[in-house]
Amino acid sequence: MIERKLIMLPGPTNIPDRVLNSMIKPIISHRGPEFRKLYQEITENLKYLFQTQSDVFVLSTSGTGGIECAISNIVEPNDKVLVPVFGIFSERLKEKIRRRGGVPIELNLEWGTAPKASEIREILEKESDVKAIAMVYNETSTGVTVRELPKIGEIAKEKGILLIVDAISILGGDKLPVDEWNIDICIGGSQKCIACPPGLAVVSVSQKAWETIEKTKNKPMYFDLTRMREYAERKETPFTPALPIFYALNEALEIIKEEGLEKRFQRHKKCAEAFYAALEKLGLTAFPKDRTVRSNTVIAVNVPAGVDNAKVREIMREKYKVVIAGGIGELKPKIFRIGCMGIISQAEVLMTINALENALMDVGYNVNLGIGTATAREIFKS
Amino acid sequence: MIERKLIMLPGPTNIPDRVLNSMIKPIISHRGPEFRKLYQEITENLKYLFQTQSDVFVLSTSGTGGIECAISNIVEPNDKVLVPVFGIFSERLKEKIRRRGGVPIELNLEWGTAPKASEIREILEKESDVKAIAMVYNETSTGVTVRELPKIGEIAKEKGILLIVDAISILGGDKLPVDEWNIDICIGGSQKCIACPPGLAVVSVSQKAWETIEKTKNKPMYFDLTRMREYAERKETPFTPALPIFYALNEALEIIKEEGLEKRFQRHKKCAEAFYAALEKLGLTAFPKDRTVRSNTVIAVNVPAGVDNAKVREIMREKYKVVIAGGIGELKPKIFRIGCMGIISQAEVLMTINALENALMDVGYNVNLGIGTATAREIFKS
Repeated sequence: MIERKLIMLPGPTNIPDRVLNSMIKPIISHRGPEFRKLYQEITENLKYLFQTQSDVFVLSTSGTGGIECAISNIVEPNDKVLVPVFGIFSERLKEKIRRRGGVPIELNLEWGTAPKASEIREILEKESDVKAIAMVYNETSTGVTVRELPKIGEIAKEKGILLIVDAISILGGDKLPVDEWNIDICIGGSQKCIACPPGLAVVSVSQKAWETIEKTKNKPMYFDLTRMREYAERKETPFTPALPIFYALNEALEIIKEEGLEKRFQRHKKCAEAFYAALEKLGLTAFPKDRTVRSNTVIAVNVPAGVDNAKVREIMREKYKVVIAGGIGELKPKIFRIGCMGIISQAEVLMTINALENALMDVGYNVNLGIGTATAREIFKS
Repeated sequence: MIERKLIMLPGPTNIPDRVLNSMIKPIISHRGPEFRKLYQEITENLKYLFQTQSDVFVLSTSGTGGIECAISNIVEPNDKVLVPVFGIFSERLKEKIRRRGGVPIELNLEWGTAPKASEIREILEKESDVKAIAMVYNETSTGVTVRELPKIGEIAKEKGILLIVDAISILGGDKLPVDEWNIDICIGGSQKCIACPPGLAVVSVSQKAWETIEKTKNKPMYFDLTRMREYAERKETPFTPALPIFYALNEALEIIKEEGLEKRFQRHKKCAEAFYAALEKLGLTAFPKDRTVRSNTVIAVNVPAGVDNAKVREIMREKYKVVIAGGIGELKPKIFRIGCMGIISQAEVLMTINALENALMDVGYNVNLGIGTATAREIFKS
């Protein structure tokens, strides 16, 4: 028996029963009429989510598979790709470019900060023949959002280079108008702000991207976007899709459409504000020092000196039934990461803060019990 | 509303409710104790299924992703790989080797036939420096099983080269003792004879394979087996797993263990015999002429002259609620393919033959109604 807990991870996250239950719909042929109808619905819903008129695809992989797909359709040996590195996921992006034989032009930044448009422009003025910028929009490892992404998109457009954006932990939770911001390939994951189970990556591809993709040789077959486009004409996937998660994705996207993007983004923002304010009151400062780059979907905070990160999370999980994450890599013991994603509302924020206050008290940290929830409550009043 | 039909495709296939319902278990952290327990159980169950002491992995991809993984962990530019080509899926295998920069040494055979050990040996005696044999064990596109696979495994062992086997449409439905047959990398799919929903590939990796994999450069990160092995030590996957399908896979593997492999293989074999006998009686001869290579899991039969393949299948699907497949590529109008997989028993065989007889009669084909089911029935009596 697996106990249901409040999942406040930066993905996967809590799933509405409506979405969960949609997975047990009948198995159908992925070459038959029922699947084509499902495919069509998902495509239309995804275009709404990405705010795009371009092509969209669903891959039966985790989000990382979606990034792998983007990189291997664009990068050929010796291609220069500008990649700002400011956390684990941007490091992975760099590594994927390198493994594909590309040359990552790194913009190395302090973790907890975000790249600026001016820094991108500076590099592009020094480096010639840069084929693309590959960038993480929301660094899940540090809780940082690149607020200058629209400006960076303008630079990419002006210079005629491609912009690849890893939006896995933010798509559906914060502003991301793909066409307006000149994003050529944008990648999301099913299990984050979309509030669907894990198992799928979603990808948008601009006309400008296609011009490059069509010329790229030796793409791994499983990630070949031209093959996906060919099958998309008959509303099919090239390879057997992870059908139950397709059902769930469509249901989750319907819920997003019902709520409306703007309202959904505002809800995430409000909950994030409540988290930051409450956590600060408890003495847990945000990991990103610059207030303007703090993420609305991944809340990363410093663990106070003397507090055992793993112990607090274990108590939260086992005693109070709320699951949050620690850091990754070097940050593992240093920060907590809380997912502020999907179905997030005042209720989940209060439950999480309450569980955290109690767990901190259990490990002997000096907590004025209730002060965090009271602070969060104030934010929701305003 | 999607209507539940009898899914007699060569994957996906009918799923027991016990497996389907397991998908709606609570979302958990893939870095937490509940997931590690699940991972451990799946690993043990997979070793039973593959009959191996070696490492096994679950990939959040379709079966094709599993093949891509095997190829990209073994093949480096200019590596020679012997690949028998006798259907669509072996052609894809060849193409994947080529895209990875490898040199496929082709053994081109008539479709509907299977490679022989003597043919493999002959090529290996002419060609030097062959790194691996990559072979489809069960050609889903032609309904052919390579019965000489154990002999080919002996040759691979003798020559010290690797044997990669695509067993997607047969693993769990027919004999496949991976260690005994000297298979170095074996790939299966969740949605075939395992009777689990689509979305996962399963892979076994021998010690001999590891020696090569460790040296292979520039594997795509998503498919990097060394990374998977590293995470496997703590019973985790490197990237977010498609959790609901992991739940389902474990449940499906439990069912396999309860039945026992030998009994399961016999059941598939008996059902296949009934299919071939009944279909022949209806004038639908097996596509593979050689009786010994006919698959027990994918039944491919020639559509009689004058019979509209798509029409018959549409009538079967819409009027009689049984879904079977046509051919792929050039064979599309020429053959029917029936999945004889997973939960298959006398009941499903009779339902399928009965639906087919009626659909054939509907399109004006001369059927002595009941003769097919009577023939199948006789087989089950013996």
